[in-house]
Amino acid sequence: MPDATTTLATLKDLLRQFAAEREWEPFHSPKNLAMGVAIEAAELMEHFLWVDCAASRAIVHDPERLGEVADEIADVACHLLNLSNALGIDLSDAVQAKIAKNALKYPVDKCRGRYRVED
Amino acid sequence: MPDATTTLATLKDLLRQFAAEREWEPFHSPKNLAMGVAIEAAELMEHFLWVDCAASRAIVHDPERLGEVADEIADVACHLLNLSNALGIDLSDAVQAKIAKNALKYPVDKCRGRYRVED
Amino acid sequence: MPDATTTLATLKDLLRQFAAEREWEPFHSPKNLAMGVAIEAAELMEHFLWVDCAASRAIVHDPERLGEVADEIADVACHLLNLSNALGIDLSDAVQAKIAKNALKYPVDKCRGRYRVED
Amino acid sequence: MPDATTTLATLKDLLRQFAAEREWEPFHSPKNLAMGVAIEAAELMEHFLWVDCAASRAIVHDPERLGEVADEIADVACHLLNLSNALGIDLSDAVQAKIAKNALKYPVDKCRGRYRVED
Repeated sequence: MPDATTTLATLKDLLRQFAAEREWEPFHSPKNLAMGVAIEAAELMEHFLWVDCAASRAIVHDPERLGEVADEIADVACHLLNLSNALGIDLSDAVQAKIAKNALKYPVDKCRGRYRVED
Repeated sequence: MPDATTTLATLKDLLRQFAAEREWEPFHSPKNLAMGVAIEAAELMEHFLWVDCAASRAIVHDPERLGEVADEIADVACHLLNLSNALGIDLSDAVQAKIAKNALKYPVDKCRGRYRVED
Repeated sequence: MPDATTTLATLKDLLRQFAAEREWEPFHSPKNLAMGVAIEAAELMEHFLWVDCAASRAIVHDPERLGEVADEIADVACHLLNLSNALGIDLSDAVQAKIAKNALKYPVDKCRGRYRVED
Repeated sequence: MPDATTTLATLKDLLRQFAAEREWEPFHSPKNLAMGVAIEAAELMEHFLWVDCAASRAIVHDPERLGEVADEIADVACHLLNLSNALGIDLSDAVQAKIAKNALKYPVDKCRGRYRVED
């Protein structure tokens, strides 16, 4: 099921079931899962350690590396969804609330082409 | 829109539009976005730094802290979705492929209640 | 040379020479080295992912795991020293300045046994 | 005391005393301290998030930013030294062992100007 049709709840349910079958809930404390997110994020980052920003874009033309990166992205996502399950957080709501917040923090006319609002 | 009805594509589209309006694509190299994921993951982790695993579960009863944590989870998710956009990765497919891979790596009968397969 | 007699400058010189022999200075931008520090920090953290805080102390009785952890600590230290070299930062001065700053931020009488100053 | 004359043991002693005065040893489990290292590493990295590798070198000409970065480097170092204290690890020995190991892994004639040994 691709992004166009898969809901966040579908992925969360798959991961809840995966953990339940293995009786892993005792390991899934928020502290551990937040560590897991950070560890997987670092493994993702490692693919881009010694290359320049421009060169890091070239990975889209290297199917093998791209597959490895997709694999690491999935690892981060799985722990993030596990954490959302453990805490009862609605991830879609949280993301949309964050986008609304950032729209106020980074107004289009002041941020076009730059990351910081000029004083 | 909550997790039950929101697709990954919906969130990716919102973030693609957010970046496009601000002309932020030049900043969104895979290298930078992977760094962004890791930085936000660390901010998420900071909420659980000095508490024990058991105590970290208590956060579900503290709405204010829970809201802050949801905010950090959203930050990680936004950069992860931005990175999926930048690389043209289908995140749902990647997550489901990872779950299938982990089902083989961690068979239920050998992993029940433990995180490592006993030799 | 053990900690009792080794200066920070000695370690920095060893690492400067190591990089110079391999002509790695072009890779040693502050951005890359900061990423390297974070990546190695995550590998260090991975040793303690699924254990509780109390259990993580038991590693001192497991020479093999302790050696692996010492190896990861060294990886973080090497990149931190490389970064200090790249930026011309005196690490001892920076650490001592930070300790002085933290002594003001965390006064002994208000912080004994707790990590946050009570309001 | 600058890097030229300060030993690792001197810094470790200062930090051991700092923690002892505040009775912080109960918080200083290896798990917590490894998290602390990773969190501070991410804060260090944040200074270089949206700049290119080349631009990240320019920070040496900006005394204010350089001071902030030195401050973050010190935070990482403090937790790394705290962790070495908690585990009874000799950091100088570990770093020198790692350099010896890397000298074998990355022979000069095969690694000059590149980060990976060509097959």
